[in-house]
Amino acid sequence: MRDAGVRRDVGVAIGDDGRILAIAPDRELRAQFPKATEIDCAQGVLTPGFVDSHTHAIFGRSRHAEQEMRAAGVGYMEIAKRGGGIHSSVRDLRERSEDDLVMLAAERLARLAAHGSTTIEVKSGYGLSLESELRTLRVIRRLAQDLPIRLVPTFLGAHEIPLEYREAPRSREDYIAVLIDEMIPAVAKDSLARFCDIFCEPGVYTPAEARRVLGAARAQGMALKLHADELEHAGAAELAAEIGATSADHLAAVSELGIQALANSGTVATLLPGTMLFLGRNKQAPARAMLDAGCAIALASDFNPGTSPTVNFPLILTLGVSQLRLSVAEAFIAATVNGAAALGLAGEVGQLAPGFSADLALFDVRDHREIPYWYGDQRCVATWLRGRPGYAPKRLSH
Amino acid sequence: MRDAGVRRDVGVAIGDDGRILAIAPDRELRAQFPKATEIDCAQGVLTPGFVDSHTHAIFGRSRHAEQEMRAAGVGYMEIAKRGGGIHSSVRDLRERSEDDLVMLAAERLARLAAHGSTTIEVKSGYGLSLESELRTLRVIRRLAQDLPIRLVPTFLGAHEIPLEYREAPRSREDYIAVLIDEMIPAVAKDSLARFCDIFCEPGVYTPAEARRVLGAARAQGMALKLHADELEHAGAAELAAEIGATSADHLAAVSELGIQALANSGTVATLLPGTMLFLGRNKQAPARAMLDAGCAIALASDFNPGTSPTVNFPLILTLGVSQLRLSVAEAFIAATVNGAAALGLAGEVGQLAPGFSADLALFDVRDHREIPYWYGDQRCVATWLRGRPGYAPKRLSH
Repeated sequence: MRDAGVRRDVGVAIGDDGRILAIAPDRELRAQFPKATEIDCAQGVLTPGFVDSHTHAIFGRSRHAEQEMRAAGVGYMEIAKRGGGIHSSVRDLRERSEDDLVMLAAERLARLAAHGSTTIEVKSGYGLSLESELRTLRVIRRLAQDLPIRLVPTFLGAHEIPLEYREAPRSREDYIAVLIDEMIPAVAKDSLARFCDIFCEPGVYTPAEARRVLGAARAQGMALKLHADELEHAGAAELAAEIGATSADHLAAVSELGIQALANSGTVATLLPGTMLFLGRNKQAPARAMLDAGCAIALASDFNPGTSPTVNFPLILTLGVSQLRLSVAEAFIAATVNGAAALGLAGEVGQLAPGFSADLALFDVRDHREIPYWYGDQRCVATWLRGRPGYAPKRLSH
Repeated sequence: MRDAGVRRDVGVAIGDDGRILAIAPDRELRAQFPKATEIDCAQGVLTPGFVDSHTHAIFGRSRHAEQEMRAAGVGYMEIAKRGGGIHSSVRDLRERSEDDLVMLAAERLARLAAHGSTTIEVKSGYGLSLESELRTLRVIRRLAQDLPIRLVPTFLGAHEIPLEYREAPRSREDYIAVLIDEMIPAVAKDSLARFCDIFCEPGVYTPAEARRVLGAARAQGMALKLHADELEHAGAAELAAEIGATSADHLAAVSELGIQALANSGTVATLLPGTMLFLGRNKQAPARAMLDAGCAIALASDFNPGTSPTVNFPLILTLGVSQLRLSVAEAFIAATVNGAAALGLAGEVGQLAPGFSADLALFDVRDHREIPYWYGDQRCVATWLRGRPGYAPKRLSH
């Protein structure tokens, strides 16, 4: 991850099939493709579009009131116990129509794309009932067809234990049975999700429960992800490595054994530094120890209404450098190549190289290191998906 | 600072003199001012434009290479010793023409304004010679005349000891003599700065030196500011309070005595949480202890090429809540009313109230708490200065 492979004074040739044909100096490209349409990138920096491999972008109301509750010392689990947190998003989403959710999410995904993300994983998980989880996944499917963004759907029915399964006559075990016997088969039947994810954390799902739920999902053909060791260690990273999950995400409380397990596995360690920032926690995932151990690290936004309402992926790069102490090259690779690996798309997106999908982002800077540097600004001026125009938040200037 | 005075379903009437005449429901305003031109704010949130009371916006090259040096463990003072840091900006600025600096700063100030700042304090301090400090201040004066932003100039010739005064035959004492005997009188003669500031920190200027320099500036009619107790405690906050500085800025390493001194003074405590974030330091100023003691707190961006290259003031509000544990109301007041106080403009800007200058920012949100919440996004859609259009980064939508 030392070398991001930055090249200067080159252009990118894109074929009619939306794949990259060549990267070379303009003169060579003009000789090789004399009939090509040219787009002037105005001396900006062209990157692979960011691969944001962890978002919860389908939700109803924003939850801005919780930010200052937390600042006043009310904890994450306590907000949840008071009926806030995830459960307030669940109540809200269940009441909304598919069309309403499409409209809300389309605007939010457009904002994510306007900062340079071209592939975005989107989880369900604010439904927590068969009907509302399937509705959420149908929303993602419609958005994937309508928007110039590559969306990767993940089923996260195991985001929490819904409140109605916390009191007799129903139990958490009943909800886990619904997950395994009803939801996962229904999701698989309509191919509504590529991944199955679970929030494996003390107070939410145990590693033993995660093993059962994910085992059922794998049996139905889904690949696996875990919300692992976010706030407290539970051995979730070790579990992710053992079962061959595609990624283990969060990891601020990962153990030394968990790091070793991830390093010895094909599981990508997905770090979400924006979440810890927004939560006001100084504890970030031990990224340098992970890199030293040989882990593959991805960076993602964790875009969600409770703990990380940012759409600005370059700010996540900033935090990758300033908080996780990555080099700029490591941060870019984590945001592109390794983000793609965290979605099982390592051969398809995340690189500017022949054969890869022409998913690109253009930034109004002269050096790629300026993208994490001008923190909080919007420097992305255009994106392309499969070679076609995506979002153009700003005008190209000369 | 508990109540930000949020009002719903009202409009703002602005007079031909650029001052706010009234704030009332639309119907009342239409009855009172039947000939007024109406601007539809599309149900967005209108705030006083942010008052960014601490920036170093006049510089040449960006210093993006230092971010990953720091991430790799090279310290602030060590980067300075290696000839990086402030000194690299000094070498760079000295070689640039006034026109070049105007062009660079105009673009950067426009980016700050595009996130909602309408009043911006701008310091010199990358010249560190009579000629280049005066040139910097002339740049600020030109920009203040040309741009729809209210700029407040501060003389910061005492930003560092220039390298040429660190070896025989010249000494730091010689530079202090230049500051006191040449620069301050020249700045005052042409009324080029409203404030004089000094970096009072172990390794830079001592409190005794600060007292002499600021004493000379006051004698020439300038108001006073201090970079105080940023990384190590030096008693600079105590000094600021004692000499009646308008503000003491940074304060991450302020002592209990310093907090008490500020609380018992008229000096505003200006906190710069973006700087600590970008530097990767977990230590933030003890904002809650300061508020409990009775300090007046302002928030500012510290926009500068080395330690805080952000133009996104709403992100500073986010950090005010998430890192400094302010309520949203406290953060807004710190960014407006108290920012104005930190510039001696408390009766002129920073409030939506009759008689105040109509310096406004409009945000594409429905609740003011969303401004710090959607962290890192650009939600500002328009600004006004003295009632006239400022920056319109985005289109007003309905």
